[in-house]
Amino acid sequence: METFIEQLSQEQEKEMERQYAIYSNGVHEIIPSQELKEKIAKSLVTGKPLKVKLGLDPSAPDVHIGHTVVLNKLKQFQDNGHTIQLIIGDFTGKIGDPTGKSVARKQLTDEEVKYNARTYFEQFGKVLDVQRVELFYNSKWLSKLHLEDVIHLAGKITVARLMERNDFANRLDVGKPISLHEFFYPLMQGYDSVELGSDIELGGTDQHFNVLMGRHLQEQFGKEKQVVILLPLLEGLDGVEKMSKSKGNYIGIDEDPNEMYGKAMSIPDDLMTKYIDLVTDLSLEEKSHFKLGLDNGELHPRNAKMLISKTIVRMYHGEKAAEKAEEHFTSVFQRGGIPNEIPTIVWHGDEEIGMIDLLVTAGLLPSKSEARRMIQNGGVRMNGEKIVDFHTVVKVEHGMVVQVGKRKFVKLI
Amino acid sequence: METFIEQLSQEQEKEMERQYAIYSNGVHEIIPSQELKEKIAKSLVTGKPLKVKLGLDPSAPDVHIGHTVVLNKLKQFQDNGHTIQLIIGDFTGKIGDPTGKSVARKQLTDEEVKYNARTYFEQFGKVLDVQRVELFYNSKWLSKLHLEDVIHLAGKITVARLMERNDFANRLDVGKPISLHEFFYPLMQGYDSVELGSDIELGGTDQHFNVLMGRHLQEQFGKEKQVVILLPLLEGLDGVEKMSKSKGNYIGIDEDPNEMYGKAMSIPDDLMTKYIDLVTDLSLEEKSHFKLGLDNGELHPRNAKMLISKTIVRMYHGEKAAEKAEEHFTSVFQRGGIPNEIPTIVWHGDEEIGMIDLLVTAGLLPSKSEARRMIQNGGVRMNGEKIVDFHTVVKVEHGMVVQVGKRKFVKLI
Repeated sequence: METFIEQLSQEQEKEMERQYAIYSNGVHEIIPSQELKEKIAKSLVTGKPLKVKLGLDPSAPDVHIGHTVVLNKLKQFQDNGHTIQLIIGDFTGKIGDPTGKSVARKQLTDEEVKYNARTYFEQFGKVLDVQRVELFYNSKWLSKLHLEDVIHLAGKITVARLMERNDFANRLDVGKPISLHEFFYPLMQGYDSVELGSDIELGGTDQHFNVLMGRHLQEQFGKEKQVVILLPLLEGLDGVEKMSKSKGNYIGIDEDPNEMYGKAMSIPDDLMTKYIDLVTDLSLEEKSHFKLGLDNGELHPRNAKMLISKTIVRMYHGEKAAEKAEEHFTSVFQRGGIPNEIPTIVWHGDEEIGMIDLLVTAGLLPSKSEARRMIQNGGVRMNGEKIVDFHTVVKVEHGMVVQVGKRKFVKLI
Repeated sequence: METFIEQLSQEQEKEMERQYAIYSNGVHEIIPSQELKEKIAKSLVTGKPLKVKLGLDPSAPDVHIGHTVVLNKLKQFQDNGHTIQLIIGDFTGKIGDPTGKSVARKQLTDEEVKYNARTYFEQFGKVLDVQRVELFYNSKWLSKLHLEDVIHLAGKITVARLMERNDFANRLDVGKPISLHEFFYPLMQGYDSVELGSDIELGGTDQHFNVLMGRHLQEQFGKEKQVVILLPLLEGLDGVEKMSKSKGNYIGIDEDPNEMYGKAMSIPDDLMTKYIDLVTDLSLEEKSHFKLGLDNGELHPRNAKMLISKTIVRMYHGEKAAEKAEEHFTSVFQRGGIPNEIPTIVWHGDEEIGMIDLLVTAGLLPSKSEARRMIQNGGVRMNGEKIVDFHTVVKVEHGMVVQVGKRKFVKLI
């Protein structure tokens, strides 16, 4: 049979290569890459958009720029006219953990799932055109499956294959229990692709096993197989760990422009290229130009980071806010002063208060232990003077400026 | 809490011990045996019969005396007023093998399942009082389970535990595929016990894993755990292999009295005690007496076998038929003649016919290859004369007697 690639006109072939170059930029792996070209060719020949799937865990909707690695990739598909399928994995969320052992996988109510999905959607709206996104809740089909269907589904997969997932094999080896129901999660995620006829599924490298399951099950059910695009996991500001809320090494996409800009300036030098590839919306040409500049020394790392920071702020807050954030950063950190405009807090606490309690009450630090640590590390200043003893008791005065770390300022009034 | 055993009167305690002695006779293992006593005590104290479960595969309803090992044990419970729960595993039968790989587990229609169940029931009626048996089809509850229920069920069991089933572990080790749906069969069988609140489940030693699963799941679902009684597998007439239809080493409970008697006479000497324990309905006293006689040489093995054979025929055809079968056996085999009454076949085949074709057409042997082998082994006679050449062509005459093996005679008319 003639492939779609063979049916392309010369012009279409150029278009296919153009799209392929965009989609493959910065990814970890495409399985298999030739099929991605064939998928693009199919959409060019038939005039039908590709269905590009992303599955979402409904339990943690707080989006940071680590998540935007995959969102930016989705946006590239959307910009070329393809259809984005967002699947909220509400079915598993509503089930919780039947063993009752995992605190993490607690049972969510319908309302919580809906609320979380809405939150996702709002935040994703900063990257994607959500009006043109198809949203699905997988409980729609999964809750209807009967034991008979489940057995048919389970008949499509061997235990050995499931054991190829590293954590399963390791746990069995060291005698850590694997509850049988855990085998269902990859199956269900894979079945979503069967149900939706997805052409492409995106996922982080940690999703390798699960997204391939979708491809396998589609084949088993006699459907066209999806292509899998695996994206690198983004290291956080510490340059070591995967960016995550719980590690504190993240940039939230809801954060205010100055905070965002300042955080982005703190990424390690060796992550600059990765950030430019994965979390900015620059064109392939701009990215190349940027990398070239870094390589030949024409672009100073500080200026490169300012470019990244400004781009990130521009993506989530617009051009104007990006310029202001850059000005702010330059005035405070390059000149070392107190910024002109700093947020104010109306103080309702005691007039005389221990420094630790002040920091927590004013919401500058989340806990007493962190407040103490910050003081010990020399990160707390009052009216520009470093606080060295965490036992310090201060008298709160109107207009007093408290500084935590390099970038957080607050005026008490 | 006070146990039921502690609540027994002296008389009840004797009754408990009496029942326990009967139930434990000839079994392979009781898990755990103390709990069986407690179960009996419970029924004595509460006045409620115990629920004694046996699960049946709906695909092979042809009952031979290998199956009666477990039926006889059920009968002992029934004789003491307990309730027998027969579960036809129609759910799995109707699903078939979702991988499509196993020919053995082909999908059965509703009609086939019903027909097979009826056949079981008719044949079981020769051992049990089927009027007092509770019959269940497990599709009644299993077909209603949704994926959500299945996940909860699967959450009650670990993969490591499933891997304790020898064939699973072995297959994974040698790289033979285990389809995930195979994990469901023990789960479903176990879930039947949860649904039915069974007190006791019987099974052959090959069912060890599956019946213990019922106990485990009952516990997981917060129910009283069933006691498991494992019964030995009965070796067939060859004395080596498990009795089975496909091995040809069986005595069918539908076979005619003479065939049954003759077959029972052919069991190896060292299986006599096992047969007396497992496939006769003699009392514990009679069994002891029998074993003692064999031990001290007062009972000749041939006479012992005649006792076994006569008992088996009596169980399935009544006292009179048993006596006639014994006479028949004595007259033919101990005197070596042709029996007085032999079945006749009205011959519709060719008048001149090859001996092999005659044996197959008359239904004396199932295939040409077996007919040829039987002739080569000197097992075929015509009017008392041995046929030595399997090319022999005979002229069929009215009243001609054909003998196959030692015991099969047919008169062609």
